[in-house]
Amino acid sequence: MSALIITEIKSFLSKGLKEDRFYHSLSVSAVAASLAMRYGADIQKAELAGLIHDCAKAYPVDQYVKMAQDFGISLEQVEIDNPQLIHAKLGAYYAKKDFFVEDEEILNSIIYHTTGRPGMTLLEKIIYIADYIEPARYKAKRLDDVRRMAFKDLDECLNMILSDTVEHLYEKKYVINPLTLETFKYYSKT
Amino acid sequence: MSALIITEIKSFLSKGLKEDRFYHSLSVSAVAASLAMRYGADIQKAELAGLIHDCAKAYPVDQYVKMAQDFGISLEQVEIDNPQLIHAKLGAYYAKKDFFVEDEEILNSIIYHTTGRPGMTLLEKIIYIADYIEPARYKAKRLDDVRRMAFKDLDECLNMILSDTVEHLYEKKYVINPLTLETFKYYSKT
Repeated sequence: MSALIITEIKSFLSKGLKEDRFYHSLSVSAVAASLAMRYGADIQKAELAGLIHDCAKAYPVDQYVKMAQDFGISLEQVEIDNPQLIHAKLGAYYAKKDFFVEDEEILNSIIYHTTGRPGMTLLEKIIYIADYIEPARYKAKRLDDVRRMAFKDLDECLNMILSDTVEHLYEKKYVINPLTLETFKYYSKT
Repeated sequence: MSALIITEIKSFLSKGLKEDRFYHSLSVSAVAASLAMRYGADIQKAELAGLIHDCAKAYPVDQYVKMAQDFGISLEQVEIDNPQLIHAKLGAYYAKKDFFVEDEEILNSIIYHTTGRPGMTLLEKIIYIADYIEPARYKAKRLDDVRRMAFKDLDECLNMILSDTVEHLYEKKYVINPLTLETFKYYSKT
């Protein structure tokens, strides 16, 4: 992925995404690249995946179910009931369509960036964590501890994030995606 | 520094800086925050210092000498001869004036972000290195090695960057700021 293509993608996203979502994307990209530096992952893949992970958020959430159906993307019941969850799968679709990304590792890191999944790849862990710890995120429990853990031990950091996320969703009585629960159990150490 | 103030600074910089310089600033901010996570530095200070380190680049370089004189900023001969070097000192001035930053550690990390100096503080090292390794920088020798070293050993990373920078300036017959040479000697292990 050349510098020119990354610059073009930034320009494209700056027009489609709301300002704060666009800045979030740039920030996730840089934090993901930093985690890749730390853990010996592919820095350019992390930069790109972080940049485009939320690209589907350029489209209105009330069209997600129809869009997914039109594009032949299979949906779980929890996604049909909570369409905002679909932005991850749609993101991978648009990554292919708009940015010609064919790399399965990048596409999967977009698909699983909100739920995670058991047995994540290094890049999937990096995008999941970067999305949670990027500096513009302010509202989360023990965020400084989670951020420092991200650069010490990825799996322990996943354990902290998933535990806090499940607790938060439970307290707020939000729907919990079954895949989030499976991921939580997989990375839980207790 | 609250989320609101950071958002306002981003909005301010997005109007003043050229697009690629603004994206660079966001990226340095996120990489600096990541280095702060890694090394136990203050994450919010690193985020802010990275974001505003190039804020003086909103002004034309041919006015830097006069601006510095008007603001009572003392200049070295090398800065008068090469005004682009002045953006670091002017940046600290505008950080105070426009963003009400009084923290000496942040202001010094802006002043020394291009030259470094012997005996840098942790935050100064972080901003100096983040500026060099952020993902949108593509043209530098052994950049992936330097990036990975940034998360292993800050002083060895400084040694690599300073050595490559001095070599590059020497090869291109660019002026080398005496302070850059002093910093190079200080962090050089050979």
